[in-house]
Amino acid sequence: MTFTEFRPLDEKHLTEYIKATPALSGKVGNSFDDLKIKEVGDGNLNFVYIVVSPAGSLVIKQALPYVRCIGESWPMTKERAYFEALALREHGRLCPENVPEVYHFDRTMSLIGMRYLEPPHIILRKGLIAGIEYPLLAEHISSYMAKTLYHTSLLYRTTTEHKRDVAEFCGNVELCRLTEQVVFSDPYKASQYNRWTSPYLDRDAEAVREDNILKLEVAELKSKFCERAQALVHGDLHTGSVMVTHESTQVIDPEFAFYGPMGFDIGAFIGNLILAFYAQDGHADQGNDRKTYKEWILRTIKETWNLFYKKFTALWDEHKDGSGEAYLPGIYNNPELRQLVQKKFMQDLFHDTLGFGAAKMIRRLVGVAHVEDFESITDSSKRAKCERQALDLAKMLLKERRKFQSIDEVLSSILQQQ
Amino acid sequence: MTFTEFRPLDEKHLTEYIKATPALSGKVGNSFDDLKIKEVGDGNLNFVYIVVSPAGSLVIKQALPYVRCIGESWPMTKERAYFEALALREHGRLCPENVPEVYHFDRTMSLIGMRYLEPPHIILRKGLIAGIEYPLLAEHISSYMAKTLYHTSLLYRTTTEHKRDVAEFCGNVELCRLTEQVVFSDPYKASQYNRWTSPYLDRDAEAVREDNILKLEVAELKSKFCERAQALVHGDLHTGSVMVTHESTQVIDPEFAFYGPMGFDIGAFIGNLILAFYAQDGHADQGNDRKTYKEWILRTIKETWNLFYKKFTALWDEHKDGSGEAYLPGIYNNPELRQLVQKKFMQDLFHDTLGFGAAKMIRRLVGVAHVEDFESITDSSKRAKCERQALDLAKMLLKERRKFQSIDEVLSSILQQQ
Repeated sequence: MTFTEFRPLDEKHLTEYIKATPALSGKVGNSFDDLKIKEVGDGNLNFVYIVVSPAGSLVIKQALPYVRCIGESWPMTKERAYFEALALREHGRLCPENVPEVYHFDRTMSLIGMRYLEPPHIILRKGLIAGIEYPLLAEHISSYMAKTLYHTSLLYRTTTEHKRDVAEFCGNVELCRLTEQVVFSDPYKASQYNRWTSPYLDRDAEAVREDNILKLEVAELKSKFCERAQALVHGDLHTGSVMVTHESTQVIDPEFAFYGPMGFDIGAFIGNLILAFYAQDGHADQGNDRKTYKEWILRTIKETWNLFYKKFTALWDEHKDGSGEAYLPGIYNNPELRQLVQKKFMQDLFHDTLGFGAAKMIRRLVGVAHVEDFESITDSSKRAKCERQALDLAKMLLKERRKFQSIDEVLSSILQQQ
Repeated sequence: MTFTEFRPLDEKHLTEYIKATPALSGKVGNSFDDLKIKEVGDGNLNFVYIVVSPAGSLVIKQALPYVRCIGESWPMTKERAYFEALALREHGRLCPENVPEVYHFDRTMSLIGMRYLEPPHIILRKGLIAGIEYPLLAEHISSYMAKTLYHTSLLYRTTTEHKRDVAEFCGNVELCRLTEQVVFSDPYKASQYNRWTSPYLDRDAEAVREDNILKLEVAELKSKFCERAQALVHGDLHTGSVMVTHESTQVIDPEFAFYGPMGFDIGAFIGNLILAFYAQDGHADQGNDRKTYKEWILRTIKETWNLFYKKFTALWDEHKDGSGEAYLPGIYNNPELRQLVQKKFMQDLFHDTLGFGAAKMIRRLVGVAHVEDFESITDSSKRAKCERQALDLAKMLLKERRKFQSIDEVLSSILQQQ
């Protein structure tokens, strides 16, 4: 079955579609009698169907031409599915261990057929709320970030490859605009979409809108987001875009992918871990005070950055004689200079990471889209207390990020505040 | 006459071409008997014909598929003519007073028909060598830079417009690569193309290739050049890309145009004025010690930056309620905050300007393409002395640029060194 124009698929038509598409029907063993289809899209933007047969399984993700949770009043190009498929394939090529395989993409239908991440895979955010430790998380996510960011940057690529791909991803402009609005703009002004735990945080939200230094800093980050084509970033790498088991870490949903600053991805992940940390007091009960778990989160934050640092610079060393145009071997291949250059690069990236991470935290506390980590704390006074701590840390990080030399200093700030 | 494929035009075919092209033949009053054609391309990359009839005139510029001064051994896409025409039209729309009008563009032939800048227009660099003052130069060039850079940045444009144009100019990648090589790479390594006033500057050139701090700083500038799509820059705004009379200032040759950092243009212009300053001692003779002229150059450098600052921030103020996405009115429209934001923006831009300006100076002293300011000093010992002063200042500026708060401080450094 080929559609010549877009239509949202219901379950019945989905079966027809799979039957008619060899790359998909093969995945369920070409047997359609026992096909089980379940719609599970809990995101804001798409339909997601899980399709399971006795012979195999797959996921079908279809983009809709509007923001699903708000409705047709907020239109959103379904072309984002094209960029999601492109990024899944590119990141999957670079890091197949941590990115689900794409079986099929249909641009007309804005439809991706891909690997079903079978149970016990769950969304990392849900695992963090449940207090589950993932011993390999930092190891895996740092590999994913190091491999995808290094290999799509000018550290590894030629200018020709870089500009070609930058141009292509300029097409994902509507999703970039959405990020600009909800991350870098709305939280800092009166907006119909903003919300917060009222009345507790009324004054805190107002303070964000009146903080000139904060606005000065967020403007610098926004311009980096808009102007700096450093690497192919996932663009939305929070803990809801990662599925995990104890052994597996899989990064999904790169529909916001574009050539942007590396720190936007690393910051998104670390910022959301910090949010998870601050939410723990709201999840503590008599059976579990979450103290040990909070320590695990902090350890994971630390390891994520430190392992990323190690792996990223190891890739750099490994390819020092390669065709990357940023640091030509003829100029930079002396060990002392390379160390100097790497130290400066990683320090700048660390400061970007803290800045973007903090901005991503703030927007989840006083902007349009909140996180389940806090939303699931039903006592709103308790929730507000957790949220205020997170907000205060984020504001400080955004303003003072250049003073931090290491991730340990960030953790100390978090602990001092407790 | 329509060509279906590229061919370099000689004078005979040029007449045929003009006859067959109404947008061009009209400019010479459709009279071809008294047509005078002169080839004047003294640049490195193109044929340039001046075409004059009793009824009017025009210039035909045709890009060749290689670097002309080196020959067919250094291929260079003739598609650059497309980006030159695009930039001339865009910059011309924004600043018609200082950009020659484009009459015609033929992509197949890589051919631009444009206004002939009639005598007494001369290349600014030649005027600077001759010791001629241009009282309106700073006024004009600051307008050109403020208008073109402001209006093509996110201060004025929407993200949608910005990403569309960034993607388009990603196509000019070969010219960007040439700049990367000759400005940011070759001077810092052994390269067959590098030259300098030998033997006098042998040790100085070697010192550039061995200076780790210089290489660290130039790497940061290179990554800004490659990654930061801040505005549609001319890309080669030295004093050889400007034609002048006492009343007129015209910016030509934007074939290197792309979306890059604003400071690359401002730095190119100011850096080349500083080169002109240091060359003056080599042009001094008994009739003219060039002392007054050197003061005029310094004054022009100062006014160029200060007027640029004034005009750029005035455009910003004027359009503060416009559709530019960088600083939304809802967040930044309070006079105190706007002032804070502008001060920071302009300070960062000033440091970029000094860095790029210094890099452009260095490459003209120890890289492949030198400037006539120095080349015309026949006494090589005297030339080397001038060049060494310029080189020392440029190295200091590149390394220490962040310490400078105003253009006056830069001028003081220049004067202290004298």
